[in-house]
Amino acid sequence: MTTHSKLSTVAGGGLLDRRDFLKQGISFSIASLVSESLLASSDEKRHPWMENPGEALSNYGQPSAHERHTIRWAMGNSMAPGNGVSWTPLHDLEGIITPNGLHFERHHNGVPQIDPKKHQLLIHGAVNNPLIFDMKALLRYPMTSCFCFIECGGNSNAGWRDIPIQTLVGYFHGMASTSEWTGIPLKTLLDEAKVSEKAKWIIAEGADPSVMNVSIPLEKAMNDCIVALYQNGERIRPENGYPLRIIVPGWEGVLNVKWLRRLHLSNRPSMTRNETAKYTELLPSGKARQFTFIMEAKSLITHPSPGYKLDKPGYYHISGLAWSGRGKIVKVEVSADGGQSWAIAELQEPVLAKCFTRFRIPWNWSGKKLILKSRATDETGYIQPERKVLIAEKGKHGYFHYNAIVSWEISSNGDISHIYA
Amino acid sequence: MTTHSKLSTVAGGGLLDRRDFLKQGISFSIASLVSESLLASSDEKRHPWMENPGEALSNYGQPSAHERHTIRWAMGNSMAPGNGVSWTPLHDLEGIITPNGLHFERHHNGVPQIDPKKHQLLIHGAVNNPLIFDMKALLRYPMTSCFCFIECGGNSNAGWRDIPIQTLVGYFHGMASTSEWTGIPLKTLLDEAKVSEKAKWIIAEGADPSVMNVSIPLEKAMNDCIVALYQNGERIRPENGYPLRIIVPGWEGVLNVKWLRRLHLSNRPSMTRNETAKYTELLPSGKARQFTFIMEAKSLITHPSPGYKLDKPGYYHISGLAWSGRGKIVKVEVSADGGQSWAIAELQEPVLAKCFTRFRIPWNWSGKKLILKSRATDETGYIQPERKVLIAEKGKHGYFHYNAIVSWEISSNGDISHIYA
Repeated sequence: MTTHSKLSTVAGGGLLDRRDFLKQGISFSIASLVSESLLASSDEKRHPWMENPGEALSNYGQPSAHERHTIRWAMGNSMAPGNGVSWTPLHDLEGIITPNGLHFERHHNGVPQIDPKKHQLLIHGAVNNPLIFDMKALLRYPMTSCFCFIECGGNSNAGWRDIPIQTLVGYFHGMASTSEWTGIPLKTLLDEAKVSEKAKWIIAEGADPSVMNVSIPLEKAMNDCIVALYQNGERIRPENGYPLRIIVPGWEGVLNVKWLRRLHLSNRPSMTRNETAKYTELLPSGKARQFTFIMEAKSLITHPSPGYKLDKPGYYHISGLAWSGRGKIVKVEVSADGGQSWAIAELQEPVLAKCFTRFRIPWNWSGKKLILKSRATDETGYIQPERKVLIAEKGKHGYFHYNAIVSWEISSNGDISHIYA
Repeated sequence: MTTHSKLSTVAGGGLLDRRDFLKQGISFSIASLVSESLLASSDEKRHPWMENPGEALSNYGQPSAHERHTIRWAMGNSMAPGNGVSWTPLHDLEGIITPNGLHFERHHNGVPQIDPKKHQLLIHGAVNNPLIFDMKALLRYPMTSCFCFIECGGNSNAGWRDIPIQTLVGYFHGMASTSEWTGIPLKTLLDEAKVSEKAKWIIAEGADPSVMNVSIPLEKAMNDCIVALYQNGERIRPENGYPLRIIVPGWEGVLNVKWLRRLHLSNRPSMTRNETAKYTELLPSGKARQFTFIMEAKSLITHPSPGYKLDKPGYYHISGLAWSGRGKIVKVEVSADGGQSWAIAELQEPVLAKCFTRFRIPWNWSGKKLILKSRATDETGYIQPERKVLIAEKGKHGYFHYNAIVSWEISSNGDISHIYA
């Protein structure tokens, strides 16, 4: 046996120093050493897929049949056709991009199948030049791209329950996804429509059968909103708003109106169902907060997470996602001893504002029971709170905006469960 | 009519100053002004997709039926089953990400359908610790992500022809695509295998029926190569190497071996068919260059481009892609007068090394015949050459590494064709 370097510990529970990877010859003791006889037989070993020509070229590719478990898990509301959600399987993904087929969905009355030749966008109300655009016209306008997350205001809301939910991480936190969105800065279109001085809000309306609409403050619309036509390079898919949706970076998902057909400028919000009966926050005082748009900093460990099992003690790769609706993530800390000590995780470049940030840290599991946590800090200095702090502030009757620190308990046999700790 | 600001010109042929977008009230004269009667009827106008609940939630989404023309166009070699290419439809895409279903393909013997439970990666040859990894083991290793392009060495090779090819831009230059790749730094695995001092090359071999293999210099392998498991978030698809491929950022596509099964360390390259008979460059002297790995800087305008038609004079959005295998793109210039004058295009952030960079510039087409060009400069100072310069250097019998400036001629009726100019 040759001598191997060791990775040094940076916090309790076996968190390791990633800078040690610059040393040569670290043994992770995961791979198998190859014997001479295995080497000799390796050339002979032919799998069936090496014996005959493979499948033909294809016009539009699909995932491997061996990855059929990687789906968005859909849950409909049996009381209302087309009303429901589906979750992004964050537990099966790596990196920051969500492939288009797996971007989460939240529909109020199903996915309209829109003919782009008949679809138009109207800008009217408190403007001097009301305008109407067909898709062909919009494609001639100056475009911009933005990598950003969209997160439903109700994402992670199982966290408000008294008993910790036991499910795959995507089916707990997966009403959040990240894409590269491309389209026209909303400001460009509003400027051409000459917004009146009395305008303060925009009512954005979709062309689905529920005629979903929401109110967006004009200031945000002029700042960084996009009328998007493309998602991850290709035209937006039907369930994400084909042919047109509005992107409202960092704010509640419900504002990112899909199948966008109308922008009505007004001096006040429309007070629709989705901003009165829904998407408000009930506080301990009995009062409810309205128009709490911004999604605060959040993080969670996706690997390992419930549903996986650690085979045996040894080296593992801890990886997760952090994001903030207020800007960039500047720090993610990971604890492997239930929060007694914390180590700083590596943030994968590029770190982008209002976008998923992938964090990673190496870990040597001793085989003992312990608790993994992650904690995000964003560029405003906001630190993701422990659950008891969030509950103390917001009470136990919340439904939206759950962003507390998430804890996974690793049992001595390698099982992983969600706990409150 | 209200008064509108105008966009100022920054170069010949109608190229405009994008900083003028900060002005308010620019009229692009593309959208329709809305009359009172149209406004009144707008609320009444209901399309069929607004009348009844839409489609249900889905486990894995697909593009709109109205986008079925957005495909990778496949061309097989009738002499050899499974040998062929398919192109990314760059003319239909925006932003920098290529969706996984549209990433270009180049297969030598079809797409093997590999069972990941039976697939292994062997590292052997000039190493002190030969190692073998199954997929479960690899998923425990420390990972990294990289947004980068892969481009076939033969991409754009129609440019060597005497007569300019007339086709959609993706079917001319679309053997290039960009993804976020995630996997294990190759250096980590090689360090654990303890590479011998005499090793200078790695022979990477795939598990397809052609047992495709290539030689990669050890220095590059230790620098930035990745053994990738994920593409744009999800596990790599079969046609892109499921369950495992090597990523060799910025170098010829053929080196990015798919279905990776073996890395053999050696003191010399293997001199396989794909690095002797193919993927070499025949020079005017009659000599051929071998191991010309790096893909030099290139750019092209994707919107507008052949196959589109400009309806009428007026404002248009010019957008294209630039990339370099040597690092970041630092400048893209656009000409609308056949190269007499050039304007600097906007580069979309984030600008990443060895990755597609989207450039854009506003343009007011007068209705006259003219020539559009783009020219990229990378961080090494290398400037994309005019075609006649490339031909003078490399002769007319090249097949690989065509990266000359691309020219689109706009006719006075708005048709667009590929010319040499």
